[in-house]
Amino acid sequence: MVRAFMQQNKPLQGIIVGYIGLGNMGRPGARHLHQAGADVVVWNRSDGPAREAESLGMRRANSPAHLGQLVGDGIVCLNLTTTEVVEQIVFGAEGLSKGLSANALVIDFGTTDVAATRRFAEKLAWIDAPVSGGQVGAEAATLTIMAGGSTENFHRALPILQTVGKRVTHMGDSGAGQVTKLANQLIVAQTIDAVAQALRLAELSGVDSGKVREALLGGFAESRILQLHGDRMVRRDFVAGGRAVLQLKDVHLICKLAELVGFSSPTLENCRAQWEQMVLQDGLGDLDHSGLFKLYE
Amino acid sequence: MVRAFMQQNKPLQGIIVGYIGLGNMGRPGARHLHQAGADVVVWNRSDGPAREAESLGMRRANSPAHLGQLVGDGIVCLNLTTTEVVEQIVFGAEGLSKGLSANALVIDFGTTDVAATRRFAEKLAWIDAPVSGGQVGAEAATLTIMAGGSTENFHRALPILQTVGKRVTHMGDSGAGQVTKLANQLIVAQTIDAVAQALRLAELSGVDSGKVREALLGGFAESRILQLHGDRMVRRDFVAGGRAVLQLKDVHLICKLAELVGFSSPTLENCRAQWEQMVLQDGLGDLDHSGLFKLYE
Repeated sequence: MVRAFMQQNKPLQGIIVGYIGLGNMGRPGARHLHQAGADVVVWNRSDGPAREAESLGMRRANSPAHLGQLVGDGIVCLNLTTTEVVEQIVFGAEGLSKGLSANALVIDFGTTDVAATRRFAEKLAWIDAPVSGGQVGAEAATLTIMAGGSTENFHRALPILQTVGKRVTHMGDSGAGQVTKLANQLIVAQTIDAVAQALRLAELSGVDSGKVREALLGGFAESRILQLHGDRMVRRDFVAGGRAVLQLKDVHLICKLAELVGFSSPTLENCRAQWEQMVLQDGLGDLDHSGLFKLYE
Repeated sequence: MVRAFMQQNKPLQGIIVGYIGLGNMGRPGARHLHQAGADVVVWNRSDGPAREAESLGMRRANSPAHLGQLVGDGIVCLNLTTTEVVEQIVFGAEGLSKGLSANALVIDFGTTDVAATRRFAEKLAWIDAPVSGGQVGAEAATLTIMAGGSTENFHRALPILQTVGKRVTHMGDSGAGQVTKLANQLIVAQTIDAVAQALRLAELSGVDSGKVREALLGGFAESRILQLHGDRMVRRDFVAGGRAVLQLKDVHLICKLAELVGFSSPTLENCRAQWEQMVLQDGLGDLDHSGLFKLYE
């Protein structure tokens, strides 16, 4: 009974999991896996988060290649910021792939270029598993996860995915998770713009934007963006949260995907111009992405 | 007891209410008021809906002016399609205002130009009370209502508003309801475009759009539009519902308001161009507004 109870609460007991990238998203991810009983080995570019993980009982590798050796044919999770960083840390000189066994599996939780993802998946067993839900979802292990890769690899990754997230969907082959995440980001980027315009237009017309937001939450304009980011706009609270510079990074990935598959839209071009205006011209990239509102003030 | 019970179930007993415009939205509106005990007098441009109302026990006027006479100092509801039609039916040759007492109150449920609304409200006691929730909400009396006008007039209109809707908010002075509705429509128009692009981009990238929609409903991209109109796009079911030509009409009202208050945005200009493309160039105005998806096929 005691043993069954422990197994139930430590579903990852006996599994070795590497974790590279202990930022806002990776730190809680590694912690959830550790608490679920996995033997977690971490590596991080800066020292602090790696030491913190060590103090919680996780092991620490000296380099991505060293982490690969320690993990052997286990699973490695990535929570890195850009496609370039993923490429360098996995396939670079001291890279993960130098140490990793051919039987290992990589899970990329980041939002990464679709074409690059397909290329990586030709070299290593790879699941693209970008998430939605932000830091709050990461802390609470309630992330929405959109996964791409072979069915076999997906099922191997599933216990990990279900430990850090709540809604896990296998979207299709390699890259399908990234495509889904970019679809998500396209909607988020454009809905933030729509909500910003609507609230600002109301203000300029002499109507209280907080009242407008509340009235609209009951109707067809209702959205998570109106609820959360609309509230930030009403209160002029643009402390990040989700930084605008990362939103622009995703908009650029969307445009790259659109070019790859021959999709074009004046709305998407305008969307790119709006986020570039905020981040590159106005220098507001460190604000929360709801700060796009400032374009209209 | 019996009398109290009847009053409870007929809260509008003894109140005379005129109803002009018995289309998809007005027909259920008039019926709800009749069922709540009001003495409803109708007028409609075409004969059928007026006769139907008569057969249900409502009275029928010969003209808007005649309806005004029959209503006296009661309340008149309008459910008309455009600002021009409102102006003509209320202030035209045989118009409502010719028969109406100075103590009557007009409630305009339509989406009407803000500046025109303020002008009308200088001539007659007027509540602008545009709604969100569509025909489904009108039938179920669950409309969201955004009202503008003086506090006194708002309280006089409230029993009527609460009979046909569920969430009723007093947004401010005359026009404030229309401003709020246009904020709503701005978000709807642009979110439909965003969802259309996201789902089409996913399809072109080889990912099932139905799966994408479902996966996204749990995250930050969640919205009523993704839920309802996203589903229509996935199934390619563009039978109206809410006709695109009316969405374009509202986009034009948004642009007029933006000009009035000195608000400008490249996103709004692009939004106008997209809906004009669908309705004016491609001739798809009779489709549901989710049919904007066709711009991307």
